[in-house]
Amino acid sequence: MTTRSIDINGARLLRRLDAFAALGATRAGGVNRQALSIEDRQARALLAELAIERGFRVYQDPVANLFIRRDGTHDDLPPFMIGSHLDSQPTGGRFDGALGTLAAFEVLETLQDHAVVTDGPVEVVAWTNEEGSRFVPGVMGSMAFSLSHMPDVWKDIRDAQGTKLQDAIAETLAALPAAELRALGMPVAGYLELHIEQAPTLEREGVPIGIVTGVQGTRWLEIRVTGQAAHAGTTPLDHRRDPVVAATSALNALYASIMPDDPEARFTVGRLSVEPDSINAIPGLLRLTIDLRHPDAKRLSEIEALIIALFQSSSHANGCTLDTRRTFDVAPTIFAENIIRESERAARRLGLPFRHMISGAFHDALYISRIAPTAMIFVPCRDGLSHNEDEYVEPEHSISGARMLFETVCGLLGQPAFGLPLV
Amino acid sequence: MTTRSIDINGARLLRRLDAFAALGATRAGGVNRQALSIEDRQARALLAELAIERGFRVYQDPVANLFIRRDGTHDDLPPFMIGSHLDSQPTGGRFDGALGTLAAFEVLETLQDHAVVTDGPVEVVAWTNEEGSRFVPGVMGSMAFSLSHMPDVWKDIRDAQGTKLQDAIAETLAALPAAELRALGMPVAGYLELHIEQAPTLEREGVPIGIVTGVQGTRWLEIRVTGQAAHAGTTPLDHRRDPVVAATSALNALYASIMPDDPEARFTVGRLSVEPDSINAIPGLLRLTIDLRHPDAKRLSEIEALIIALFQSSSHANGCTLDTRRTFDVAPTIFAENIIRESERAARRLGLPFRHMISGAFHDALYISRIAPTAMIFVPCRDGLSHNEDEYVEPEHSISGARMLFETVCGLLGQPAFGLPLV
Repeated sequence: MTTRSIDINGARLLRRLDAFAALGATRAGGVNRQALSIEDRQARALLAELAIERGFRVYQDPVANLFIRRDGTHDDLPPFMIGSHLDSQPTGGRFDGALGTLAAFEVLETLQDHAVVTDGPVEVVAWTNEEGSRFVPGVMGSMAFSLSHMPDVWKDIRDAQGTKLQDAIAETLAALPAAELRALGMPVAGYLELHIEQAPTLEREGVPIGIVTGVQGTRWLEIRVTGQAAHAGTTPLDHRRDPVVAATSALNALYASIMPDDPEARFTVGRLSVEPDSINAIPGLLRLTIDLRHPDAKRLSEIEALIIALFQSSSHANGCTLDTRRTFDVAPTIFAENIIRESERAARRLGLPFRHMISGAFHDALYISRIAPTAMIFVPCRDGLSHNEDEYVEPEHSISGARMLFETVCGLLGQPAFGLPLV
Repeated sequence: MTTRSIDINGARLLRRLDAFAALGATRAGGVNRQALSIEDRQARALLAELAIERGFRVYQDPVANLFIRRDGTHDDLPPFMIGSHLDSQPTGGRFDGALGTLAAFEVLETLQDHAVVTDGPVEVVAWTNEEGSRFVPGVMGSMAFSLSHMPDVWKDIRDAQGTKLQDAIAETLAALPAAELRALGMPVAGYLELHIEQAPTLEREGVPIGIVTGVQGTRWLEIRVTGQAAHAGTTPLDHRRDPVVAATSALNALYASIMPDDPEARFTVGRLSVEPDSINAIPGLLRLTIDLRHPDAKRLSEIEALIIALFQSSSHANGCTLDTRRTFDVAPTIFAENIIRESERAARRLGLPFRHMISGAFHDALYISRIAPTAMIFVPCRDGLSHNEDEYVEPEHSISGARMLFETVCGLLGQPAFGLPLV
């Protein structure tokens, strides 16, 4: 770091993180700032206010993505975008989304502090409803941006209180009159997102920077095993058609093979219920969901086939019938080679150890990668814990992440962030 | 059957079954006549009306058990009781409870038809809330009767709509002013209950009569396996503390051993749920219930110990903690030898093949056996199906059951139901 002529303002970044953590703060030290809520609007308003103070322009689009623009000398060029999201889980942490958004804003302020002139514009973006906890699905803002329209079926989306998504968006847009409305979707020069890892690899290996080369593919399955409800006390074994027995047998075999045999696979049963759910009745129906992830599309299909085959044979063996439905399917994403290479150079210049990694979670970068060169940078979070009020990032890691963002953006834009111009 | 001088009126019994099946009839051909509901009151009123027509006396007690009394020559003797219950499951069948109650009433009418004089009184009883589906717990009326009081904690019992048990009892009592109120609990000479088997053994073996020698013991366990909720996509195998993995492993071993190794055991997981129950989250908590039954108290304890040991080891192996709680414990019940012997003689006199059996389900007889000599008679139901709108009993089996009840009662009371006085 000895040769650097321009550095981000780490203390300012940490202050900003504290200021935003106060919006929707929970007693347990976390954040409840669900998408398009009052608290989310407060965070958007604060970011817009800070932006206007610094002379940046502020835009919203019809899905309420929020953009802070710093013009370049060629303002007709597509912007390079950096950012993340400001919404949180109901019992979320202070860093998930906020770190990437505020570090991006710190990059913009640092450019401004030092009057760095860029060719094209640089924009900070806070994508709407990344979490998907209030309105389903998540990564909503980046998805709509990448499609240049909102899917028709979103007209019917409501939260648990019955509030329509469309109304919540309209109110959120109206709450920020200082922001100019612009069309949904536009050409983007590139996108780089800083995020906490939400997994324990970096912390465990003592590496401060993860350069993310892609996002693993995900499939969601809904599985229904139908047997026959019957009296727990009177029904002998050979008259039982118990879906719990069938599911238990299949799951036991799957848990023993999928992840132990393939360290890149992730296999999770997240939802599980039975009917009639009565203590003295053999259930007639069992439902469960499977979240399956893998960086390799071929392996995803192989494992999915194994899951269905094992459930079929165990259902058959127990006199049950099986229904499976694939409800979600996102192919593995590979990030842009040029941004990955520039991130590696940035880390070397900054003297920050790094490793390559695949993102296990979805991020807005997943959808933006479909329309522009995209990559991500991860920093460690304590115990890999996220979506939890105890989520925590060491200040030095937040600052290193923001430095990586600044340094990579400068490298990509060919700006003299360092004493010597970059080649 | 050639020597019998008195027979029950089978056609009348079948008409009564139809008449009562109409009270709370469901579209699918079943019955919804939950305890202390309007429909239950209609059934009680109809039975009381029929009783009064025949000159019997009608009583209720403070838990709304309904008694139809036919006096003997020594009216100070404790009554011999026969009966069952009139309440049903929400989607119940036409025979569960109703058959035993109406066959008992048929016995009383037959005694009356033929002016049979008995020494002591004979009473038909319809116990309140056997099913326990609207108000928990079930076998409520017979339990309170056997204790001669209602447990204090019942003051707080409400149904799902918030109706207090006490209010529902009071309204039910008030709806039948023709019935005299008497104290809860009294000396009983003996109790015999006819019921459908609710299991497939008799039908499968082609045997029309089961003479029930006892009720298997039951233990209910609540099991909580606590792990750590975490992100399904990002958490590697060695960081998972997944309670579904722990429970699946234990259950798979238990399903493979308990019932296959011991044909008398019944092992059922009836309730099963996880938290947070989100498709992309590893659950942090799994809850399940176990219903364990066995005719042998020692085996019950051995199997319970095996269950807890396997859950402990699988929880430990998966970084989870275990809580288990025994929420219900009813020791195996052995019915009265003298009533069982008399039932065997009755079956032989009637030329009805029979087998001995243990009841897998609870019945009111379980509690009454604690205060008086008690036994039960089972008849087959189609496919062993019960607690189901498709529950069905062949007319000949209903009639055979009522004959067994009449014949056994007459035998026990030493009455000349046959051409020759019984010894």
